[in-house]
Amino acid sequence: MENKMDMTFNYPSLLINKNIAIGNIKVMAEKASSLGKDLRPHFKTHQSAEIGEWFREYGIDKIAVSSPQMAAYFAEHGWNDILIAFPVNIREIDLINQLANKITLGICISDLKVVEKLVNEIVAETDIWIELDVKYYRSGIDFSDTEGLQNIVSKIKKNSKLNFKGLMVHKGDHYTTNVELQKQKHFEAIEIIQNVREFMDKYSENYIVSYGDTPSCSSFDKFDGVDELRPGNFVFYDFMQVSFQACDLNNIAVCLSSPVVATYEDSRKVITYGGAVHLAKDFISGEQESFGKVVRLRSDGWDTKIVGNVDKVSQEHGIITWNEDEDLPLPGEVVGILPVHSCHTASTMGCYYDLNGIKINRFNVADLGHYQKI
Amino acid sequence: MENKMDMTFNYPSLLINKNIAIGNIKVMAEKASSLGKDLRPHFKTHQSAEIGEWFREYGIDKIAVSSPQMAAYFAEHGWNDILIAFPVNIREIDLINQLANKITLGICISDLKVVEKLVNEIVAETDIWIELDVKYYRSGIDFSDTEGLQNIVSKIKKNSKLNFKGLMVHKGDHYTTNVELQKQKHFEAIEIIQNVREFMDKYSENYIVSYGDTPSCSSFDKFDGVDELRPGNFVFYDFMQVSFQACDLNNIAVCLSSPVVATYEDSRKVITYGGAVHLAKDFISGEQESFGKVVRLRSDGWDTKIVGNVDKVSQEHGIITWNEDEDLPLPGEVVGILPVHSCHTASTMGCYYDLNGIKINRFNVADLGHYQKI
Repeated sequence: MENKMDMTFNYPSLLINKNIAIGNIKVMAEKASSLGKDLRPHFKTHQSAEIGEWFREYGIDKIAVSSPQMAAYFAEHGWNDILIAFPVNIREIDLINQLANKITLGICISDLKVVEKLVNEIVAETDIWIELDVKYYRSGIDFSDTEGLQNIVSKIKKNSKLNFKGLMVHKGDHYTTNVELQKQKHFEAIEIIQNVREFMDKYSENYIVSYGDTPSCSSFDKFDGVDELRPGNFVFYDFMQVSFQACDLNNIAVCLSSPVVATYEDSRKVITYGGAVHLAKDFISGEQESFGKVVRLRSDGWDTKIVGNVDKVSQEHGIITWNEDEDLPLPGEVVGILPVHSCHTASTMGCYYDLNGIKINRFNVADLGHYQKI
Repeated sequence: MENKMDMTFNYPSLLINKNIAIGNIKVMAEKASSLGKDLRPHFKTHQSAEIGEWFREYGIDKIAVSSPQMAAYFAEHGWNDILIAFPVNIREIDLINQLANKITLGICISDLKVVEKLVNEIVAETDIWIELDVKYYRSGIDFSDTEGLQNIVSKIKKNSKLNFKGLMVHKGDHYTTNVELQKQKHFEAIEIIQNVREFMDKYSENYIVSYGDTPSCSSFDKFDGVDELRPGNFVFYDFMQVSFQACDLNNIAVCLSSPVVATYEDSRKVITYGGAVHLAKDFISGEQESFGKVVRLRSDGWDTKIVGNVDKVSQEHGIITWNEDEDLPLPGEVVGILPVHSCHTASTMGCYYDLNGIKINRFNVADLGHYQKI
């Protein structure tokens, strides 16, 4: 492999195939448009100003993020409509006020108890979303708590700076390899949303419903009662999404390059420099537990034929079983690993390299302290 | 909580209690000394130049790391005897030569096939270690492959710059809550090491054996045939090590501060800002699966009484079940989470804050590209 990527191949690097990522963005943008829905991609997957630019060509002008700090990072890079799609952290009210003074900022209420404080302490014009729990049972106001919903909306109206924007739904139990169950969960959520709307319409107008997750936005077409799709992972996809049938192997836009450091013929085991601190520790359970799927690298990217399985990861070791019908690599070669969960692999790696070996930076957890004010 | 830590409490921060860490270092240094063994702490856990300084007072002058880049980072910060305790990555031979020119560098052979290349390409004086696999079956030369061992040593002798330093052993299957099994595995390893020494002594002299892992170095006293202990995690410990009975709760030196964003009385569920990208995804299985144990923060650190369990983590959400007999916190409060695996939590967080709110930097995966030459 004699291209400019050569240097980055000496150590674990998260390679990104820009064409694949842009293809994924295009497909999702066209799908949303054909369904008559807005698309507000969740930028928590890539967390990169540069990759964010790739979305603009497809008409994207509003995004979701996970924290005020991530919002500050993207606001700094020209994004003017940002929803922090995470239960509002009232300790960060100062940063929220600063952001809301600068851009169209949305924050999210998942607990009735925070409303009073928000009403009193938010001083800049802010969009307020209510997180609706539609039987996912992670966070949010339970869909059946109509009194709670009314209560929040009426309290929001006490502060003229607060604009009730809509309902935010994340139905995370779509995350299953059982496609029938995925469908059932999705249809259940859509039905609940329609029922809640019927109730809400009686005392609210001009509010919208934002709904998101990559499996349902990739696989289904029925989004009645939803105004805005909010998937995130689709920009990169990963092997977990392949297992959910949300995408094909050739839609995966990131791949960890991982140098081979030892190989053992008898056990067909390959040890690579690329472990838990690079891939993260998400795994697919089942017959063959997998922390990543191994492919061969090419000068222009990577093959999609799987040649091995990452059985285990130690802190820095990848422990791979190489397929019987494939030649074992030698120490010094570099293999590619398609991540199980690209959001987490991207977070642990902290940066990307394009196929010319050029580094692409991103927001990192270690930057949280840097963005306490803007 | 009105001390200087207040600001860092607004977002997930990895707090470090320096006194506890120094206590852990002191205990391990004294134990090694009382056993007549050298201590070469593995710095892969903290990866911080500043924390590294805390070891010097206890006579530590040699360390282990996981990569040439991490070696370059610590060499830059005054460490002169560094073993890269990971199968040598022959793609990084240039950086290895640069490092070996500057400091006493040790590298590690885990595969016979790399020896030829090393013999030809290493030009600076370098300590060569052989990784011995003593029935852990991750990487290394199988202990029974006496021909392989002889072969490596005789090849090393062909290059006068290469100094056969010794055998490196990591017996990772100590990692079990079954203390009897831990003991059995450890004794098995020690017996194997003694047998291998008997054989090696016939044609090698002045070599040493380095042995390490936190559970055995914490819990056992029998290290016959071992010259050097090489544990890493002990500087911080974590809840996994508590479950192995390698330490007590009050030995854990790091704790993730995590703001509460929603609480639900009925289910006793607490949602915090602090998820997989902060804690990492290590978990303890068993009756109560756990991604971390929740404690209350104090102005001078944290309690050791456990008040809740992290049942699940999403990318940014911690999903906690709060103990029945403890008052639920309110949104806006901050709780502490004792990590399951501190090495990985420290890696995902990318920096520490001491109990005065002062940031402590560390080497990060995103820095790999920076240390390609020194």
